[in-house]
Amino acid sequence: MRIGVIGLGNMGAGMAANLIKAGHDVTVYNRSRAKVDELAAVGARPADSVSDACRGEVVLTMLANDDAVTAVTFGDGGIIGSAGQDTVHISSSTISIGLSKHLAEAHAAAGHKFVSAPVFGRPEAAAAAALFVVTAGASDTVAAMTPVFDAIGQRTFVVSEDPSAANLVKLSGNFLIGSVIESLGEAMALVDRGGVDKHQYLDILTSTLFSAPVYKTYGGLIASEQFEPAGFAAPLGHKDIGLVLAAAEELRVPLPIASLLRDRFLRLLASGGDHLDWSAVGSLAARDAAASDHSA
Amino acid sequence: MRIGVIGLGNMGAGMAANLIKAGHDVTVYNRSRAKVDELAAVGARPADSVSDACRGEVVLTMLANDDAVTAVTFGDGGIIGSAGQDTVHISSSTISIGLSKHLAEAHAAAGHKFVSAPVFGRPEAAAAAALFVVTAGASDTVAAMTPVFDAIGQRTFVVSEDPSAANLVKLSGNFLIGSVIESLGEAMALVDRGGVDKHQYLDILTSTLFSAPVYKTYGGLIASEQFEPAGFAAPLGHKDIGLVLAAAEELRVPLPIASLLRDRFLRLLASGGDHLDWSAVGSLAARDAAASDHSA
Amino acid sequence: MRIGVIGLGNMGAGMAANLIKAGHDVTVYNRSRAKVDELAAVGARPADSVSDACRGEVVLTMLANDDAVTAVTFGDGGIIGSAGQDTVHISSSTISIGLSKHLAEAHAAAGHKFVSAPVFGRPEAAAAAALFVVTAGASDTVAAMTPVFDAIGQRTFVVSEDPSAANLVKLSGNFLIGSVIESLGEAMALVDRGGVDKHQYLDILTSTLFSAPVYKTYGGLIASEQFEPAGFAAPLGHKDIGLVLAAAEELRVPLPIASLLRDRFLRLLASGGDHLDWSAVGSLAARDAAASDHSA
Amino acid sequence: MRIGVIGLGNMGAGMAANLIKAGHDVTVYNRSRAKVDELAAVGARPADSVSDACRGEVVLTMLANDDAVTAVTFGDGGIIGSAGQDTVHISSSTISIGLSKHLAEAHAAAGHKFVSAPVFGRPEAAAAAALFVVTAGASDTVAAMTPVFDAIGQRTFVVSEDPSAANLVKLSGNFLIGSVIESLGEAMALVDRGGVDKHQYLDILTSTLFSAPVYKTYGGLIASEQFEPAGFAAPLGHKDIGLVLAAAEELRVPLPIASLLRDRFLRLLASGGDHLDWSAVGSLAARDAAASDHSA
Repeated sequence: MRIGVIGLGNMGAGMAANLIKAGHDVTVYNRSRAKVDELAAVGARPADSVSDACRGEVVLTMLANDDAVTAVTFGDGGIIGSAGQDTVHISSSTISIGLSKHLAEAHAAAGHKFVSAPVFGRPEAAAAAALFVVTAGASDTVAAMTPVFDAIGQRTFVVSEDPSAANLVKLSGNFLIGSVIESLGEAMALVDRGGVDKHQYLDILTSTLFSAPVYKTYGGLIASEQFEPAGFAAPLGHKDIGLVLAAAEELRVPLPIASLLRDRFLRLLASGGDHLDWSAVGSLAARDAAASDHSA
Repeated sequence: MRIGVIGLGNMGAGMAANLIKAGHDVTVYNRSRAKVDELAAVGARPADSVSDACRGEVVLTMLANDDAVTAVTFGDGGIIGSAGQDTVHISSSTISIGLSKHLAEAHAAAGHKFVSAPVFGRPEAAAAAALFVVTAGASDTVAAMTPVFDAIGQRTFVVSEDPSAANLVKLSGNFLIGSVIESLGEAMALVDRGGVDKHQYLDILTSTLFSAPVYKTYGGLIASEQFEPAGFAAPLGHKDIGLVLAAAEELRVPLPIASLLRDRFLRLLASGGDHLDWSAVGSLAARDAAASDHSA
Repeated sequence: MRIGVIGLGNMGAGMAANLIKAGHDVTVYNRSRAKVDELAAVGARPADSVSDACRGEVVLTMLANDDAVTAVTFGDGGIIGSAGQDTVHISSSTISIGLSKHLAEAHAAAGHKFVSAPVFGRPEAAAAAALFVVTAGASDTVAAMTPVFDAIGQRTFVVSEDPSAANLVKLSGNFLIGSVIESLGEAMALVDRGGVDKHQYLDILTSTLFSAPVYKTYGGLIASEQFEPAGFAAPLGHKDIGLVLAAAEELRVPLPIASLLRDRFLRLLASGGDHLDWSAVGSLAARDAAASDHSA
Repeated sequence: MRIGVIGLGNMGAGMAANLIKAGHDVTVYNRSRAKVDELAAVGARPADSVSDACRGEVVLTMLANDDAVTAVTFGDGGIIGSAGQDTVHISSSTISIGLSKHLAEAHAAAGHKFVSAPVFGRPEAAAAAALFVVTAGASDTVAAMTPVFDAIGQRTFVVSEDPSAANLVKLSGNFLIGSVIESLGEAMALVDRGGVDKHQYLDILTSTLFSAPVYKTYGGLIASEQFEPAGFAAPLGHKDIGLVLAAAEELRVPLPIASLLRDRFLRLLASGGDHLDWSAVGSLAARDAAASDHSA
């Protein structure tokens, strides 16, 4: 397929490379040119503008946030104005369900097709074509995009005909990670005050009931209090929890842990935590606890 | 070793059987006689009273709660008055850190030794000698008990010289499970309102970042809203969260998610949930949310 | 002064009438004409459009929410395009601090002056010229508006040179009322379960430390469980708590009780409470509690 | 009446003095002798022991907490063993509903009568016979105690035949004060960051909807950040919130604001706040917020 990829950050670059490897004809665009050249070196066609990346049957966007997706889609020379009839826009960014619905409507009005396909996985998984793809949209369009999903991921989940449902799943996943961070932060503050070594404690947890990668990764960061450099920065976590709460607002679902997380992120940012990894939220419980005896 | 085992519930019976298999000389006591006879049939010496089970070098208790352990230890004919000098009391029950400290002091005063050794694992793991043992106490005593731990579990973690630290680890583990239940309950209420199938959602979660058994087990119960029969009843969950908060009170550690869980359990019990599995706490978020469109 | 008043609801109508009584030359506009005619009967000049109400030195808006103020100010024929140089726009509506800042900038760019002047008090106080006016803006402009404030209120508080500070005070006041509702709801649920009559309990409270009107008014509604007709409907309370949280977001202030209130309102609305008074939030604690013994 | 008064702290001393002024024959006991002598100088009979204070028809206790009341009642030479048949024990201390029930049972078994009569009001009100008395117990006994209540307070509320109901009302009152402290702390943190002066803000609040003394008193302390010397120390506030939650546990009433307050007090104490007034809980929201622009 002829595919345009817009957004060549850590995630998008890996996805584009894998689309090339799978034999697709891939055009790439990025705001800063260096990334474009890197991909061109492995077989991509470089694009000088968003509109240049909209000439194929598919345009896939992998960008940082709502603002970036909005600019690329609705701005001058954006996808809405540049893409041909029946072009499929696959949006893989973590965006609000509000924007997802707006994209679906605008593309329908412009004669395009729209599919949401956010992914679970870190940059290494993107590079290894091992992402998990959660997708939603009109079933025939989604089915037609199978070769794209197969090229970038290890497994694809089709969750709904409504594209925004896939975004909701992605956001809720980040909420669950946030919940793990906060609960581990509380548990570690508690056992630390009781004289238990935090690393050994984490070893017990991850050897038993909590063997999931998310416990190992974030538990290790919290136990070591090592929040720099940020793998996923606190303002991004804050933003995603805000998007979860916005979705909950629209769907009228009270989410007490999400509300707690919002306050935790505000506090972290208010105390200068903008540059820290979002797992630093897991250090706040310890900050509020009595100094541990054994550290005296 | 000559070992008395007191408490032959689903957990204790399996542990006693494995001690016998490992070649120990095991005497068993239980409030109701039937369990004693079952174990006698596989090689245990039956005891008619707590004191009869206190004749060996070790007495291991595996009971339901603080009250049961208190009665067996401090009551008439209890362990304190019946055990000989240097007898080791291994307490595997999930009890408060307050009682654990009290046991340590009382046994020291009586010339006994005391080790806490709560376990992670369900009855099947107890039967298969596959428990995870978390233990704490004087290091030489703990070291001397290695044959006991090896007989009942697959791995032993020694966490502190202070026996109550092991109880704290156990309680904090139940707190983390409670956090998983609540967070899954919130996430599922949200995506369900957004039109996503809850079972498919759980499949996505457990295929990706949340592969731990605890997500599979409790997520499945919440998705199916199947809270009977109770594997671990709501009042027990409520009690354990209460013990976590009591420990947090003593150690002065604010735990907002634990506070939330306490209120959730109170609500569940207030609405008649005594007979439900504790994962029913994960149904409360959905109860508060707007009826989902797709269920209309 | 020549003053245009836009928005003749329960509050605005009383304010306009008092401006007339105080001798000002008042032009009135309202979306539905009936209110205009009522005011015309007591001396107001009727206006057929927003722009007709923008011919004086002052235009005062008293509208339901951000959308209404936005439409009246920035819409076709709105205040921005219609008002003359140096016209003062007094905004008395309960609006977001974001909109307040936007209004200040837009009016400055258009050569107008802008003052925020939200009020505390119910329709009866508006009718009696007994409102409390909280105002903020450039000090000379605020000072020049003294005759307006004196005509509608019993006391004026000048809080800042930044107009949005007055909106923040107003919003925070509604947050505090919400806190009273929730805390009274919890306390009444508790004593009710303990066998104490809720009305007598409220009498004790308001005879002693809690003599403020807000306890009497809302406590009475909660004790009687009388939430219809709505004096201030739940969706408006929900909206205001949302505006408080939006301000807290911008200023980076974690507000745990506000977060709780947000979830309470979502739950109330999700269970069909749109038509109820916002004090119905105070009935949720009782809903979660065990049925009281004495009501059995 | 012949009345023994046990506990001559700031509250009890004033109550005893007023009983003397009202013409009663008052015997006083206190752990430290100085207070006894002060009261003796104004007409009290000094007692050397608790039992000496139990010779009359009534013994009134006004002590710091459950432990003190337990010691005085059940200890060697305590009220249970010393008081004659039909003696009335009036307990005015702020105690748990659990202890209140225990006292009622023990006194009934010993042939005594028991009435709870906690009071609202500070030491100045106790000195001025201006307390509010909340009482519960068998109606004839309560009625017979009217002269006592009239001597110490300005108004008496009879709430139940169950003595513990009066304790519940008292505890819930302290919970409501705690709610005011927390909500004011949040609101002031918010408006302060928005550039509003906290004292002026409080003036606005207390001039309008929040005219109750509790807002003036605690709001002033929070605005001034003046938490020493402690009028009511943080550990006492913490203890009372604990008693509220214990009551809520027994009655199965989830109380989210009380749970929040418990965590707030733990945090305050963990950071060295034992010597501060309990209103220092109202400073925590500001601690978590971004530094305000205007303080830079």
